[in-house]
Amino acid sequence: MMKKYFITGFSGFVSRHFIDYLDKNEIEAAILGADITRPEFQFENYKSVKCSYREMNLLNQDDIKKILQQFQPDYIIHLASYSSVAYSWKQPIVSFRNNTNIFLNLLETVHDLGLSCRILSIGSSEEYGNVTAENLPLKEDHPLNPVSPYAVARVAQELLSRIYSNGYHLDIVMTRSFNHIGPYQKNTFAVPAFANQLLEVKKRGLNQGDVVAGNVDIIRDYVDVRDVVAAYYALLESGLKGEVYNICSGKGISLKTVIEIMGSMLNIKVNIKKEPSLIRPNDNQIIIGSNQKIATQLGWKPRLSLEQSLVDILGK
Amino acid sequence: MMKKYFITGFSGFVSRHFIDYLDKNEIEAAILGADITRPEFQFENYKSVKCSYREMNLLNQDDIKKILQQFQPDYIIHLASYSSVAYSWKQPIVSFRNNTNIFLNLLETVHDLGLSCRILSIGSSEEYGNVTAENLPLKEDHPLNPVSPYAVARVAQELLSRIYSNGYHLDIVMTRSFNHIGPYQKNTFAVPAFANQLLEVKKRGLNQGDVVAGNVDIIRDYVDVRDVVAAYYALLESGLKGEVYNICSGKGISLKTVIEIMGSMLNIKVNIKKEPSLIRPNDNQIIIGSNQKIATQLGWKPRLSLEQSLVDILGK
Repeated sequence: MMKKYFITGFSGFVSRHFIDYLDKNEIEAAILGADITRPEFQFENYKSVKCSYREMNLLNQDDIKKILQQFQPDYIIHLASYSSVAYSWKQPIVSFRNNTNIFLNLLETVHDLGLSCRILSIGSSEEYGNVTAENLPLKEDHPLNPVSPYAVARVAQELLSRIYSNGYHLDIVMTRSFNHIGPYQKNTFAVPAFANQLLEVKKRGLNQGDVVAGNVDIIRDYVDVRDVVAAYYALLESGLKGEVYNICSGKGISLKTVIEIMGSMLNIKVNIKKEPSLIRPNDNQIIIGSNQKIATQLGWKPRLSLEQSLVDILGK
Repeated sequence: MMKKYFITGFSGFVSRHFIDYLDKNEIEAAILGADITRPEFQFENYKSVKCSYREMNLLNQDDIKKILQQFQPDYIIHLASYSSVAYSWKQPIVSFRNNTNIFLNLLETVHDLGLSCRILSIGSSEEYGNVTAENLPLKEDHPLNPVSPYAVARVAQELLSRIYSNGYHLDIVMTRSFNHIGPYQKNTFAVPAFANQLLEVKKRGLNQGDVVAGNVDIIRDYVDVRDVVAAYYALLESGLKGEVYNICSGKGISLKTVIEIMGSMLNIKVNIKKEPSLIRPNDNQIIIGSNQKIATQLGWKPRLSLEQSLVDILGK
């Protein structure tokens, strides 16, 4: 039977890839997308997916209530987020409100209306915070030790999910999604920002150039957004209620190496210029996850290599 | 030298006892109190303490900024809170906003203004959540596992304190304060609510009566508010920056026993009537803390016995 999806953060790149995933796999779906700004992508011409869009502020609980009551979703995917760690240091209040408070509005509305839909609560690898090498790769039972305002907001969101799952028996599945990369990601994020700088160098016909960056020694676990949305679909269909799942590649790579790989793909000799204003007050040096839980339970595995992701980012 | 204290939640009973503590100990202090409602107690006639009051909503960041810039406090004691677990289940959004968001406003304002004041961040034993008997009494390094919306808000507050302490080097000392009891506490809390019901029975000249209650088997660690404020003063003066301290008696007692002790103090035979609507969706069965850390570091110990607290509550 055709399922109804309510997607917050509809205009973002994860939402776009999620819809693509459904359509490419010929999964029939009715999607109601909510966001504060209209998507830049076309959402009217999918084959198996019917999308409609509603401009709204998720801080407005009355609006959420009206929409959910009317739409009666089977699934809610909460993608709306100010997911930049750097931004959260600059605007911690706005970041917190637009992560934790809007999520709580959503949960409370679902509870209040007595909806029985499944909710996918998207969390972040940033929740783990500073970890020591012997704890890598991180499993889901590793203690959370957030070191940025963004990470605290995500931990609070996960804790609220547990409260509503255990206290009110809402059907919630949680993720800790590691660093997404892939086509259409905004330049406010590190990898597309660097890709953009390198493409500018290329456009000017040069074979060497500067990349302005903060701390490029940090090691992260990058996972292609197209693999991420496949995991989200699997979790909506078969994830265990009240459980949290890492979504990651299981491999760590430094930001420096990512920049160098992109440079070599474009035949550009890269000179990394350190910009102190881009260095965060506090940062986790290394984050690598274990995807054993989701792999074992649901058979999900990342399919796209880092190189493939970077080729697609540079070629888009 | 006389210190300046900015106290949020000025109209509450903890604030009142804190001012009493300073004044009784002849500690010279200038206090600026902020709250959304005017205190019911007289605050103009202390000897060594000069108080002024400002009616304000701590969700309004502009107001906070103006006031802190003008007052330039040495200490901020953040007592403003919707500290009822029961209320947080009924109004999770309001509870969260009035706990976590106002605290973040305060931190961000202190950071933004570059103030070097010490901030006392009041947390709660509720942050520990469900624990097993072998982990009692709870030490500060025990993992946090909140089981109510209120507790999540308190954990988020503590995590934000750590972010601002580690990332921005703000001078923050944190507490996990266990169940306060004592004179002037509002009847929305369990112990004064039961005291009130028993005093009503007494007033009608009866020697037995009903007490309407939720789950009275839960075991809590009660600490007199007058001991709590002594701990707060000690932490402001000598607590270690960035550290968290339990404030507790170290002893556990069931709510049922508390009711029975009060009944026997009033010579009333108590019949506890269970009211299902007062039972929370999820509750921690037992919470007992260790006060070893604050005792060892600062020499603080609770001085008032539970019986003394209950006598004073009934006699006020």
